[in-house]
Amino acid sequence: MNTFGTNFRITTFGESHGPAVGAVIDGCPSGLALGTGDIQPLLDRRRPGTSALVSPRDELDRVEILSGVFEGLTTGMPIALLVRNETQEPKDYEELRTLFRPGHADFTYQQKYGCRDHRGGGRSSGRETVGRVAAGAVAIKFLAEKGIAISGVIVSVHGKTGTAAIEAEILAAKNAGDSVGGIVEITARGVPAGLGDPVFGKLDAQIAGAMMGIGAVKGVEIGDGFEVAGRFGSENNDPITKNGFASNHAGGILGGISSGQEIVVRIAVKPTPSIAKPQKTIDIHGNEAEISIKGRHDPCIVPRILPVAESMLALVLIDSWLEQAKYHR
Amino acid sequence: MNTFGTNFRITTFGESHGPAVGAVIDGCPSGLALGTGDIQPLLDRRRPGTSALVSPRDELDRVEILSGVFEGLTTGMPIALLVRNETQEPKDYEELRTLFRPGHADFTYQQKYGCRDHRGGGRSSGRETVGRVAAGAVAIKFLAEKGIAISGVIVSVHGKTGTAAIEAEILAAKNAGDSVGGIVEITARGVPAGLGDPVFGKLDAQIAGAMMGIGAVKGVEIGDGFEVAGRFGSENNDPITKNGFASNHAGGILGGISSGQEIVVRIAVKPTPSIAKPQKTIDIHGNEAEISIKGRHDPCIVPRILPVAESMLALVLIDSWLEQAKYHR
Amino acid sequence: MNTFGTNFRITTFGESHGPAVGAVIDGCPSGLALGTGDIQPLLDRRRPGTSALVSPRDELDRVEILSGVFEGLTTGMPIALLVRNETQEPKDYEELRTLFRPGHADFTYQQKYGCRDHRGGGRSSGRETVGRVAAGAVAIKFLAEKGIAISGVIVSVHGKTGTAAIEAEILAAKNAGDSVGGIVEITARGVPAGLGDPVFGKLDAQIAGAMMGIGAVKGVEIGDGFEVAGRFGSENNDPITKNGFASNHAGGILGGISSGQEIVVRIAVKPTPSIAKPQKTIDIHGNEAEISIKGRHDPCIVPRILPVAESMLALVLIDSWLEQAKYHR
Amino acid sequence: MNTFGTNFRITTFGESHGPAVGAVIDGCPSGLALGTGDIQPLLDRRRPGTSALVSPRDELDRVEILSGVFEGLTTGMPIALLVRNETQEPKDYEELRTLFRPGHADFTYQQKYGCRDHRGGGRSSGRETVGRVAAGAVAIKFLAEKGIAISGVIVSVHGKTGTAAIEAEILAAKNAGDSVGGIVEITARGVPAGLGDPVFGKLDAQIAGAMMGIGAVKGVEIGDGFEVAGRFGSENNDPITKNGFASNHAGGILGGISSGQEIVVRIAVKPTPSIAKPQKTIDIHGNEAEISIKGRHDPCIVPRILPVAESMLALVLIDSWLEQAKYHR
Repeated sequence: MNTFGTNFRITTFGESHGPAVGAVIDGCPSGLALGTGDIQPLLDRRRPGTSALVSPRDELDRVEILSGVFEGLTTGMPIALLVRNETQEPKDYEELRTLFRPGHADFTYQQKYGCRDHRGGGRSSGRETVGRVAAGAVAIKFLAEKGIAISGVIVSVHGKTGTAAIEAEILAAKNAGDSVGGIVEITARGVPAGLGDPVFGKLDAQIAGAMMGIGAVKGVEIGDGFEVAGRFGSENNDPITKNGFASNHAGGILGGISSGQEIVVRIAVKPTPSIAKPQKTIDIHGNEAEISIKGRHDPCIVPRILPVAESMLALVLIDSWLEQAKYHR
Repeated sequence: MNTFGTNFRITTFGESHGPAVGAVIDGCPSGLALGTGDIQPLLDRRRPGTSALVSPRDELDRVEILSGVFEGLTTGMPIALLVRNETQEPKDYEELRTLFRPGHADFTYQQKYGCRDHRGGGRSSGRETVGRVAAGAVAIKFLAEKGIAISGVIVSVHGKTGTAAIEAEILAAKNAGDSVGGIVEITARGVPAGLGDPVFGKLDAQIAGAMMGIGAVKGVEIGDGFEVAGRFGSENNDPITKNGFASNHAGGILGGISSGQEIVVRIAVKPTPSIAKPQKTIDIHGNEAEISIKGRHDPCIVPRILPVAESMLALVLIDSWLEQAKYHR
Repeated sequence: MNTFGTNFRITTFGESHGPAVGAVIDGCPSGLALGTGDIQPLLDRRRPGTSALVSPRDELDRVEILSGVFEGLTTGMPIALLVRNETQEPKDYEELRTLFRPGHADFTYQQKYGCRDHRGGGRSSGRETVGRVAAGAVAIKFLAEKGIAISGVIVSVHGKTGTAAIEAEILAAKNAGDSVGGIVEITARGVPAGLGDPVFGKLDAQIAGAMMGIGAVKGVEIGDGFEVAGRFGSENNDPITKNGFASNHAGGILGGISSGQEIVVRIAVKPTPSIAKPQKTIDIHGNEAEISIKGRHDPCIVPRILPVAESMLALVLIDSWLEQAKYHR
Repeated sequence: MNTFGTNFRITTFGESHGPAVGAVIDGCPSGLALGTGDIQPLLDRRRPGTSALVSPRDELDRVEILSGVFEGLTTGMPIALLVRNETQEPKDYEELRTLFRPGHADFTYQQKYGCRDHRGGGRSSGRETVGRVAAGAVAIKFLAEKGIAISGVIVSVHGKTGTAAIEAEILAAKNAGDSVGGIVEITARGVPAGLGDPVFGKLDAQIAGAMMGIGAVKGVEIGDGFEVAGRFGSENNDPITKNGFASNHAGGILGGISSGQEIVVRIAVKPTPSIAKPQKTIDIHGNEAEISIKGRHDPCIVPRILPVAESMLALVLIDSWLEQAKYHR
């Protein structure tokens, strides 16, 4: 459950307020030039403490490569990536030992495991994505060498578009002790035709699973997504010409296999459930209580989810790329 | 790629116009009463030829149980389910040997495999879902004995709601040589809290992958889905009371783990790409051509996708149910 | 548990006295010429009824290809292979409904599943290997096109070597209402250097698992096997010269990865547990009883295990071959 | 390839002379009391530098738990275990940058990956087993709470039995610049009947794969192993009485499923390939050369392989135990 991928497999570990977070990559081909300098920039994009729009938790998130790289090149052996947690403040979370935060995994983890690490959400914290992003950076580097580029943009936050409007909306929510959601679009260019598998291993199925596996994501669309439900087939089919497809309603995937067009994915991100405003909840004994969440939280996770979503798309694509390679020796 | 699930694993096989389609279930617990009578009704719900709204291909889809059941009970051994194809009319498809149908997998399969079974889409045909539904029926029976019930409804077709309006819309499209898409909602009641896993194995991630792995699905929502992007956290969080959650915006899943509430999933279904209206395309040599698709097609796949989507949700839930069981001996 | 392989995956199904046995292959590359004529000869080598040395059960074991082959070539889609059971005689086995046969899986299946198909061992019967051999034949054909040849020989039966001595030993055991074991050696020639993975995915680890997964096998050796325990390192290391290795004590595998030398595997096969001689046992209620096993049994399974062991080695090698291919595009 | 297990999955990482070695455990049930004190003793049993019989490399092998344990109990989250390498002396290995050591993985890794970490064998070093043993210690603790005990003994070294004779044999080999092999037996007591799966997932198949996946192992036997090849069925079958089985030739496994008897496994361990005596080899350019291996090596790996083999058996058994649990809720 903490492993993703079939060919390029990552296993992540670590809790928000434990000693460290990280990932082990298994299946990375040998011969890829790799150093911490390839990984740190993507980690820096997701790290908190960088502006008023995000959590003030000031983690430097310095990554260490523990294995799998020798004299600057990957060896084909597992690549262990480690990031120490430096600014744990578990005292901030003592109240959460017994209270379930609405919209969080507190209640369900307690039901499933009979216990939980209440400090900042433990494993269910967004801090878990450090491992994904560190591993994703390796995938992104590999893909870049194959001509595949991945990028993400914020489509909207709380219904607003445009950088200034979005920033204002986030700050307003923050000042109100509240939070806001949004929509993000991720695209991949340069993906060759033929990636993905029929039936259950469809490329879009893998992408949907990868994206919905990011905390806070509640919806996934490929290409035109829900809009296609209101269309005629004659409107929605992408005509094929000798110069390629005449449109891209399909978002670059047909029958679960990449068509060579740009792959387009959109995800719906819910407002951060940690808010200062008082909320109704219960404690682990079933008693009703009111909770006002303290600690260092993001009023909107949308900006920081971008490198995570890009990483997940990269992990799906490198996995499919390697899968396809074995049939085309 | 043709196997789904970790604990209750199904492997499907078969092409639209080959000798047979079917599935092998591995990991079904022993002692479940099972006969063809438990499977046939769900197959009948997805089979074509039943009304003017669906494809006239008249397959009886009689299922045979080849293994894994002894004296009326499952034995824990693999359950092989076979359905013979009876009304192949490959001559209908001779034109497709060289032409790529827009919106179909023809182009991408050819790119991936260097060849393809052009007869009715071969493996990319919706006929592949016979195996899913046959296996899904077994999962549905098992879950029912645990108090879990799954059902699906059509939310809208081409923007219309209401049975009469939907039927009129489908027939109008059919008469125009066109097709229409729609939205389907699947719910599961009686799911205990605690199913699903953290991180990559989140229950919603599994559901999203399962649903997007159904041909024609272009979007997946859990709970309120894309609507949450426009909300405040204080609106979107489901308050917890001693009588349970006060609302269900989350769709029954928190942190990737079932909360005990109803699980709610919506999917966007694209209009069937097979339409009689002429479309621009190319042949396998790259020459431009016009195509008008003959054969026995559905003007709207939405009604027949219901049992498929219910099956996929059942397959995810039985898998999670068994996964959870091992930690609660 | 009924699936073998990571890249070339086979799932087998069927019981000794159920309607059919078979296998589904997933992951076979497209473009391989394949017909029943490629599969039937290997099935014929394992089938019973061919001489006084083996079981008189006279199954023709005709294989049907249900999917995955189109116009004589594999398409990359799952290949379902079906063999109907034709000569079930379940009445022969009525006594076994309540008695546990010593040396058989009857007792352990009952313990594990709370039930079992007692007819000829059900799934634990050697008849299950029909699916392995049918799938193995496809692997053998693929490997042959890559220059890899697999063959097996009987090393000894009940301590005897030489065809005539072995046949006499088997017939003597049969006439005494008893059975005998033996040793089989399987070799693969033409395997390129580089197949197999470090650590848990070592080629010899995969082979050992594959061989010990054949019923009746109780020991596996690679290269010189147990003999190496009595050697000095200076005797056991294979010196390397510019013309290749000077010896092959290692059996073609170093550090879990093929060296390009011949791969050599030996397996110990126990005497068939089904014997006419009376044996002490208990029934399902715990009462002691004496059992004298009727039905159509092999006095020595060694001759019929050869095509099964060859198939298992082929399945390991094709899987490793495809795994390796993905890193050498 | 660096992951073992289906339910209790371990992923190991690290090279002999890299910064660290370790493992991530995924799927350990919550609520197990766990601290470094449960892991360190087994690591101490495998560590070098403890006597004249083993390598003088003096690693303390202090384990750190990075995640998955909260307030002394496992949480169900991945448990990352880290051991820093402290006494790397890569200069000892400079010669090996270009020379292939006979009997080692140097040649095959170079063939497979086109590169290799030559320092002490890199990933192919026995140092990789630190991760297995650290994870194995967790499995052993869990199993002990279920009444399952695992232990190993040296059967023979270079044909000698008895502690004094074995020690003399090892020291004699060491003084001669040579090495010796041996045989080890591992047993598990208290294993309930019903663990393991039919067909490919047989308990003995899993054990054989696990054992042959330990470097230096060239043969695996279950129960009486190769001896059964020379027996009659009437000798080899274990009669069943109302007090249990009357013998245990089968080694506690019937039809791939545990019978409740003691599980008995024997492995053949080859003499350490690293010897001071001069050997013929080639360099990476194909030129012939003589090699006399320096560095800190074990003249016999048999004593240190014991905790590794015990760990691997524990990992198989915990995996089967959890697998079985899910069908007996």
